[in-house]
Amino acid sequence: MLSLKFDTGFWPGERILMGPGPSNVHPRVLQALSLPLLGHLDPDFLAILDRTSENLRQVFRTQNELTFAVSGTGSAGMESSLVNVLEPDDEVIIGVNGVFGQRLLEVAMRLGARVHALEAPMGEAFDPERLIQAHKKVPKAKALVVVHAETSTGVRQPLEEVGAYLKDKETLFVVDAVTSLGGIPVEVDAWSIDICYSGTQKCLSVPPGLSPITFSAKALGAIERRKTPVSSWYLDVTLIRRYLGTERLYHHTAPISMLYALYEGTQIVLEEGMEARWQRHRALGEALQDGLETLGFKLLVDKPFRLPQLTSAFVPEGTSEAWIRKELLSRYGIEVGGGLGELKGRILRIGLMGETAKPSNATLLLDGLKTLIAD
Amino acid sequence: MLSLKFDTGFWPGERILMGPGPSNVHPRVLQALSLPLLGHLDPDFLAILDRTSENLRQVFRTQNELTFAVSGTGSAGMESSLVNVLEPDDEVIIGVNGVFGQRLLEVAMRLGARVHALEAPMGEAFDPERLIQAHKKVPKAKALVVVHAETSTGVRQPLEEVGAYLKDKETLFVVDAVTSLGGIPVEVDAWSIDICYSGTQKCLSVPPGLSPITFSAKALGAIERRKTPVSSWYLDVTLIRRYLGTERLYHHTAPISMLYALYEGTQIVLEEGMEARWQRHRALGEALQDGLETLGFKLLVDKPFRLPQLTSAFVPEGTSEAWIRKELLSRYGIEVGGGLGELKGRILRIGLMGETAKPSNATLLLDGLKTLIAD
Repeated sequence: MLSLKFDTGFWPGERILMGPGPSNVHPRVLQALSLPLLGHLDPDFLAILDRTSENLRQVFRTQNELTFAVSGTGSAGMESSLVNVLEPDDEVIIGVNGVFGQRLLEVAMRLGARVHALEAPMGEAFDPERLIQAHKKVPKAKALVVVHAETSTGVRQPLEEVGAYLKDKETLFVVDAVTSLGGIPVEVDAWSIDICYSGTQKCLSVPPGLSPITFSAKALGAIERRKTPVSSWYLDVTLIRRYLGTERLYHHTAPISMLYALYEGTQIVLEEGMEARWQRHRALGEALQDGLETLGFKLLVDKPFRLPQLTSAFVPEGTSEAWIRKELLSRYGIEVGGGLGELKGRILRIGLMGETAKPSNATLLLDGLKTLIAD
Repeated sequence: MLSLKFDTGFWPGERILMGPGPSNVHPRVLQALSLPLLGHLDPDFLAILDRTSENLRQVFRTQNELTFAVSGTGSAGMESSLVNVLEPDDEVIIGVNGVFGQRLLEVAMRLGARVHALEAPMGEAFDPERLIQAHKKVPKAKALVVVHAETSTGVRQPLEEVGAYLKDKETLFVVDAVTSLGGIPVEVDAWSIDICYSGTQKCLSVPPGLSPITFSAKALGAIERRKTPVSSWYLDVTLIRRYLGTERLYHHTAPISMLYALYEGTQIVLEEGMEARWQRHRALGEALQDGLETLGFKLLVDKPFRLPQLTSAFVPEGTSEAWIRKELLSRYGIEVGGGLGELKGRILRIGLMGETAKPSNATLLLDGLKTLIAD
């Protein structure tokens, strides 16, 4: 363990965060976190809140009025996307091809929904036609839910065809973009996504703790037609929107410092530009994946469905996943992730997200892995 | 509006935060927020997580193993305290003498519980005997819930007798200590409180965003005997404790930076010492309350039930509450709160919490109010 030192003895070690998130954070974001507090109804703070929503609209590529950060992590955003919509006995279609699809299923079950789970092996995407056919069997489904970037595998799920198909249906298109937003294209309006949520600690490079989310007018219409109240008071967007809107009605105390950070973080994203940011992630991810294959690593996901920002690589025969991760951390200060669920102990999950997505980090990792597998 | 300046143009104005929270934050806590990130499974971070729980046990005055910070604001802690315990049709007794009691009632209703609301006027506490009698009428109640420090009024609710009475009953004693923890005595073990939650941004002087919470063995037993799953996956403590415990099973990504802040903030609290901190709040609160009465302000709450850290003062006849608050902010940089619910427009809520609880702040406010009411 590294030497600890706050004022009171703790000092975090320098880390290159190349796991599935959190990613490294820009010094400007850390500086924003350290600014003095304003009250949650202070006019200056409300200006920051509004500007953060405006930034998030640009990042999500949407005009949706109700675009904000849930006061919790990406999993709170997931819960918000379902709890606001699903009532007991509502039907919902959920694509499950990894741990986060499974989590969506679990959240929906707990809300009393009738879940139609569509399964695919970990490491594979769903053929959009299969999702469309699933909807044809359950046309009354309140929502069809998929994970855009499965953080447990590194699979990219194509969304465009499904969005176009659902556009004129009553069913809402709900998308988990926790690991995709800011790293690969997420086109909320162009792809007719009705609810899309993300996390701050992935390709946006802001510390974990908030979940950017956006709701379409179609989603709000469905929420307004509910027959029962939203079971979570904390996540109820019909209340939260009264604080975000001109009424400024107090709901809960906004997480001021984290919102400073998200504001500054989204400014940095927009200064780079969405297209440039996607291109940076794409080029570097491909280079890393090529480098891993050259070293003899087998990758979990077929090339067309690989996420550039998160790569799953099988650990070579005879090498321990836990040992590689431990050595990367102690020798190089590099954190990578291990496998979850059935992939536990079998894969490394390597993130190149946001601030972490730099050629020097990819080079150092490949060099480190080369040394370790030769050991 | 003050001039704005981050790196990107925003700079928050200097504020003396004398509203009902957030309070001012110690520079050491701001510095902790600005430290580089560690991963949520990094051994160094897990050490901080454990030490934060240990600090919270000392602050809550409890030995409860399950003591941690909910990844959301105080309202998420409130929801966590009920959603983990209440199943549909469970009976629950809730004391409602202000906005936060009302919110507890709302949360419990949404969970499908059968709520027995006990009401008292805003500004009054419940006679403990009345709470005990209410329980005798509904002895099967799963929980009896009260607000220790009602943030909408500044009332302190005596807890000790009720805790002693419920100790050997099946009913859980659930206490909202959002505004009390760190400002006045909260004795979780000595008062036999089963679930107690707070907020970071009040007397602990950490930015808003986390909710310290603690569960007794009796509470955990009740949770383990549930017949239905906890309706919120995000707040389910049976899952969260597997990450907090030796298993370290991933649940959701911990809000790293805010946990740094809470660690440092609780260190500061413990360096001062709980008794010294309570004494500081008590002496300064009484001085402020005396000063307000000398200026002719009528206080909402009878002396024995006043919180030293939060004072509700009626606005003098012929003076506008909104005007006073606006002038305090623009002339002195002081934020105070207005009334909520039926007290909207009628009272000022003045906080002297944590770092804000300094004689110079009380003096400046009294001086400012004197000037304004003479205007």
